[in-house]
Amino acid sequence: MPETTMLTSRLYGIRDLRVERAPIPTPGSGEVLLKIASVGTCGSDVHYYVEGRIGDAIVKEPITMGHEFSAWVAGLGEGVSELSVGQLCAVEPAISCGHCEYCEHGHPNLCPAVRFCGTPPIDGVFAEYAVMPAANCFPLPEGFSPDDGALLEPLGIAIHAVDLAHLKIGQTVAILGAGPIGLMTGAVAKASGAGAIYVTEPLAHRRTFALDYCADAAFNPAEEDVVKAIMQATGGRGVDVAFEAAGAVETPDQAARVTRPGGKVIAVGIPADDTLTMTASVIRRKGLTIKVVRRMKHTYPRAIRMVQRGLVDIAPLATHRFPLERIAEAFELVAGYRDGVLRAMIQVGNEKR
Amino acid sequence: MPETTMLTSRLYGIRDLRVERAPIPTPGSGEVLLKIASVGTCGSDVHYYVEGRIGDAIVKEPITMGHEFSAWVAGLGEGVSELSVGQLCAVEPAISCGHCEYCEHGHPNLCPAVRFCGTPPIDGVFAEYAVMPAANCFPLPEGFSPDDGALLEPLGIAIHAVDLAHLKIGQTVAILGAGPIGLMTGAVAKASGAGAIYVTEPLAHRRTFALDYCADAAFNPAEEDVVKAIMQATGGRGVDVAFEAAGAVETPDQAARVTRPGGKVIAVGIPADDTLTMTASVIRRKGLTIKVVRRMKHTYPRAIRMVQRGLVDIAPLATHRFPLERIAEAFELVAGYRDGVLRAMIQVGNEKR
Amino acid sequence: MPETTMLTSRLYGIRDLRVERAPIPTPGSGEVLLKIASVGTCGSDVHYYVEGRIGDAIVKEPITMGHEFSAWVAGLGEGVSELSVGQLCAVEPAISCGHCEYCEHGHPNLCPAVRFCGTPPIDGVFAEYAVMPAANCFPLPEGFSPDDGALLEPLGIAIHAVDLAHLKIGQTVAILGAGPIGLMTGAVAKASGAGAIYVTEPLAHRRTFALDYCADAAFNPAEEDVVKAIMQATGGRGVDVAFEAAGAVETPDQAARVTRPGGKVIAVGIPADDTLTMTASVIRRKGLTIKVVRRMKHTYPRAIRMVQRGLVDIAPLATHRFPLERIAEAFELVAGYRDGVLRAMIQVGNEKR
Amino acid sequence: MPETTMLTSRLYGIRDLRVERAPIPTPGSGEVLLKIASVGTCGSDVHYYVEGRIGDAIVKEPITMGHEFSAWVAGLGEGVSELSVGQLCAVEPAISCGHCEYCEHGHPNLCPAVRFCGTPPIDGVFAEYAVMPAANCFPLPEGFSPDDGALLEPLGIAIHAVDLAHLKIGQTVAILGAGPIGLMTGAVAKASGAGAIYVTEPLAHRRTFALDYCADAAFNPAEEDVVKAIMQATGGRGVDVAFEAAGAVETPDQAARVTRPGGKVIAVGIPADDTLTMTASVIRRKGLTIKVVRRMKHTYPRAIRMVQRGLVDIAPLATHRFPLERIAEAFELVAGYRDGVLRAMIQVGNEKR
Repeated sequence: MPETTMLTSRLYGIRDLRVERAPIPTPGSGEVLLKIASVGTCGSDVHYYVEGRIGDAIVKEPITMGHEFSAWVAGLGEGVSELSVGQLCAVEPAISCGHCEYCEHGHPNLCPAVRFCGTPPIDGVFAEYAVMPAANCFPLPEGFSPDDGALLEPLGIAIHAVDLAHLKIGQTVAILGAGPIGLMTGAVAKASGAGAIYVTEPLAHRRTFALDYCADAAFNPAEEDVVKAIMQATGGRGVDVAFEAAGAVETPDQAARVTRPGGKVIAVGIPADDTLTMTASVIRRKGLTIKVVRRMKHTYPRAIRMVQRGLVDIAPLATHRFPLERIAEAFELVAGYRDGVLRAMIQVGNEKR
Repeated sequence: MPETTMLTSRLYGIRDLRVERAPIPTPGSGEVLLKIASVGTCGSDVHYYVEGRIGDAIVKEPITMGHEFSAWVAGLGEGVSELSVGQLCAVEPAISCGHCEYCEHGHPNLCPAVRFCGTPPIDGVFAEYAVMPAANCFPLPEGFSPDDGALLEPLGIAIHAVDLAHLKIGQTVAILGAGPIGLMTGAVAKASGAGAIYVTEPLAHRRTFALDYCADAAFNPAEEDVVKAIMQATGGRGVDVAFEAAGAVETPDQAARVTRPGGKVIAVGIPADDTLTMTASVIRRKGLTIKVVRRMKHTYPRAIRMVQRGLVDIAPLATHRFPLERIAEAFELVAGYRDGVLRAMIQVGNEKR
Repeated sequence: MPETTMLTSRLYGIRDLRVERAPIPTPGSGEVLLKIASVGTCGSDVHYYVEGRIGDAIVKEPITMGHEFSAWVAGLGEGVSELSVGQLCAVEPAISCGHCEYCEHGHPNLCPAVRFCGTPPIDGVFAEYAVMPAANCFPLPEGFSPDDGALLEPLGIAIHAVDLAHLKIGQTVAILGAGPIGLMTGAVAKASGAGAIYVTEPLAHRRTFALDYCADAAFNPAEEDVVKAIMQATGGRGVDVAFEAAGAVETPDQAARVTRPGGKVIAVGIPADDTLTMTASVIRRKGLTIKVVRRMKHTYPRAIRMVQRGLVDIAPLATHRFPLERIAEAFELVAGYRDGVLRAMIQVGNEKR
Repeated sequence: MPETTMLTSRLYGIRDLRVERAPIPTPGSGEVLLKIASVGTCGSDVHYYVEGRIGDAIVKEPITMGHEFSAWVAGLGEGVSELSVGQLCAVEPAISCGHCEYCEHGHPNLCPAVRFCGTPPIDGVFAEYAVMPAANCFPLPEGFSPDDGALLEPLGIAIHAVDLAHLKIGQTVAILGAGPIGLMTGAVAKASGAGAIYVTEPLAHRRTFALDYCADAAFNPAEEDVVKAIMQATGGRGVDVAFEAAGAVETPDQAARVTRPGGKVIAVGIPADDTLTMTASVIRRKGLTIKVVRRMKHTYPRAIRMVQRGLVDIAPLATHRFPLERIAEAFELVAGYRDGVLRAMIQVGNEKR
């Protein structure tokens, strides 16, 4: 007799994350049952865990978080023929409506009716099984591990952020904040031929990691004026593009100040105070363009190709691993903002189990 | 014997604007002596008049303000052959360096070494004469009045703002703030085939003017929730492009809230508190692009053509006129933010005088 | 008992167009039965009628042509709730797959699996009834006639052509060929604030129409060197954008020659010899961009709004009207390339019949 | 007494290239005297050498060719302070007017009044000395050889070609023609993170070079249908961007056929028959954009940075070296289109001589 229940996890309130049993879901038409392989603990999950909300997305009922994930196909719903049971897939966590103006115009990431795994009130994938549309599943080539597959989601955000920058080869880049998204953005910028990459980050291990991974120089905002440091490093010109990936109160304005006239600020970070503030005369004198990253679109095939070609090395981002049973421990680790921690992966299942 | 001195005006401090005599300047190589015809009292002049500064541009020494202007060519410096004495010209008030990266790349409005008429410490043109490079002078066709010529400067900003929006025919527009720049932006958007134009403005006369001039509807932020009003008017979708032309504390965030996902906010206004603040979750969920207008570039020839073709009617913007001697009175009028006042023009000279 | 057969027309071979009876089709899930109102005789239909092909799209079996059309909803397939019987609609004739890379990225006009009304081997709508997906139907507001509704299709192409040009207000335009598409392109460019519009066209009536409709000047290529004429009219500079809407052998190169350095050529016309040829040194010296128009995308809502606001007047394009029974006569008229003929409309049905 | 004459070379007619003596020129205000170091034999020089023309640029008087070059500063004209005697520079060969619409808008490569070294009737730099504006000289950092400096010119064209493509990381590329420009374009595309690069080239050594240098696969158009080969390699989709770098009669149409719907063809090659021809139905069905490369703009600083960072390795392109005295021999070699020959460098001077 097949199993009918599974382990799942639910956030009941701030810092109250429980592992429970729940029924295994059944795939509908066009959907697949997925046996979850690996799930990353994203910064947005941490916002829900620690603050109970992101802007007006508020945890009101117990919710299963988790959206950076890979999974094996475990069952096919009606009409699904393009996937087979057993395939390891990276899975796009956003289910856009497919019919609104934004979906039709090619911007599913802007769909107002999107259902996104692990964003209230939609359950995510820190669980043994989940159901997703077949179209969201991208089978992984040989050589990709479950963690690699999960990391393609944040890599997609980094690709989308660099896409928005329309970076030209040889242009210079600043990255404010060397968390996983900032580091991946740096790696994508480097693989795109960036002329120089400057990183700012208060944590020492992350600066070291950045220097090894993508950065020409890394500055510590706790010890020096990072605006002055980057302006000096660029001979007073500023960088062509600054990526705000820290989500701190002061980093958007720093990003504006280190960008050259006519340059771009790409806002990737999620600020705890839900506010973006810049000095008006600075952004006006420079005639800046500010673009705000909303998840990503159409990035999985390119992300897979880039990793396959060795253009970006994502494996080192997975610094810690936990089984699903110890998810609360993982979140405490990540929420501690401890140096040395990048992504903690929840390794939910393995193929044979 | 020709005159050697002229009337000029100087701002000595907040609300301390004096009319004095000064030597008539002499044009150098490539320059022309201009007999000033008409000069508009721009909102940025008013910032200096009332607050003594715009961001870190601070009035420290007495300064002649004024940069929206037309003038007759009154004398030719060495090597100037493309202009003749007596021509009425619109005059680009920014003297960019011509050699920096931004000038060379076609963005003289971003030149860090720009010398701009009436921006500290460079004197402007609320005076009987001034000297400018010949290349800054655009001779006006028959039918342009001195006031028209002066108004081509703010029209240029409106054109540049709409250029930045990459407005497609039929797209919808919101304009927050119906001062002269907001109104001109509306007129340019209308002439570009905008599908609907919604204006927000607290002053009643300006709303009436807007409805007559460019707007489909005008809302009063003092009496209703303008975000709700525009969302309702657009069937809940929001506009394709919002132009922030009020410079108030709350208007950038309103602009973000009335813009559709994937839309653009064009920031034209100059806020008194030198800060631009938006709600992060709003701009992120919509994946907005925010562009900040830095003056304009290359707009004079197109502005002249548009007025000639009747695509935009700028004359009604000049609501009040004063001689140079009464400039302080004009500034008190404009600074009073009184309804019914759009541009007060300082009519400095006339051709025959 | 309801009718079960309808009149239809079929092209059996070059210039062999027959009116016959056929079964009325039945709408499937998500589809509607349409009672055809008005159908335009597009230039591409004429290519099939006269040449039997467009490139490698070849008429091998008898085919019902027709794709520029309006229709009344006459029956709803399963699951259709957003339309009601009796509504007059403009109908998008392209049924894109919805699942390929191009559909997902917002470019249904590039869908390789598109099924397009009246393009071999898909039947079109020169018939009393047809079945189409509900999503292709755009209900028309009060005041739109059936002919107006049909003309929204070529207007959409004109909008898409101008969209591709990224025309800025005040920029100048050349239009080579003043057939319906060329004229509508001119009208859209005018409504977008074009600074000047120059038309070339051998037929006298079309030049007169163009001058009245959208053009500043119209030149006759049979009598003068139109390249020289446009260069002279633009003071030797050339236009910012040239739209090739003639489909003649020589017009693409003329378009390149009348465009300024850095300008754009938008290729709209369908050449009989299936070749686009330009002089390499001309397009290289100018660093031109050439964009080829592939139908249109997402234009119906904007087209409806533009016509409603009076930004474009499409009704005059419908110069001749025929009932379905006389379709062969209509095609002989249009294929004769006789002056005074723009669109001949096949008025298939009327609401009450 | 300083030398007053120098060796120079002049093309007297087709394949008639002579080495002669001429006076050493004197730098004017803002100019420098340059002691020529290394000059590449560009394909455009070869067109003049073999055909006596490129389009309507015709060799009517004896001309000194040569424009891909490096040189030591040998003397400063009046007012030049930013350079010092003895500096090795890469030199931009185009002297644009600085005042026309195109120069002002940041497109000096489109300046109609450009004076370009070695394009009739302007003399180039296959000579011991030349005079150029100081602003055209880019001092080279340590580690750049004279040949490297000369090769920055074609590298700039490759950078400009890739800039025009707006290549996104992971996108796929075809390059038709593996001459030096094609190879450099491939190298820049690779350094920009291209997802796959396919090269077509009839010469075996060039294909081998390409595979080593930048290509995933290289196809021989003399032996196979390269369109079919690339379509197969891309799973039937075609590439995102095709660079036409062969200048053959058939390569533009091949480029169009291997490009995906909505993709771009970048035309870099200079065809001997001065014609660009494509199949209209192919480029229309795909809605292609075709951009024609006109030299380059603003690329020297980025090119220097890219070579310094090791993003592109240009040295291997210089396969042969000749002294100025043997320039005719060099041109015979290059014009022979012999396999194994990429750039033959004319090493005119050395620092100490």
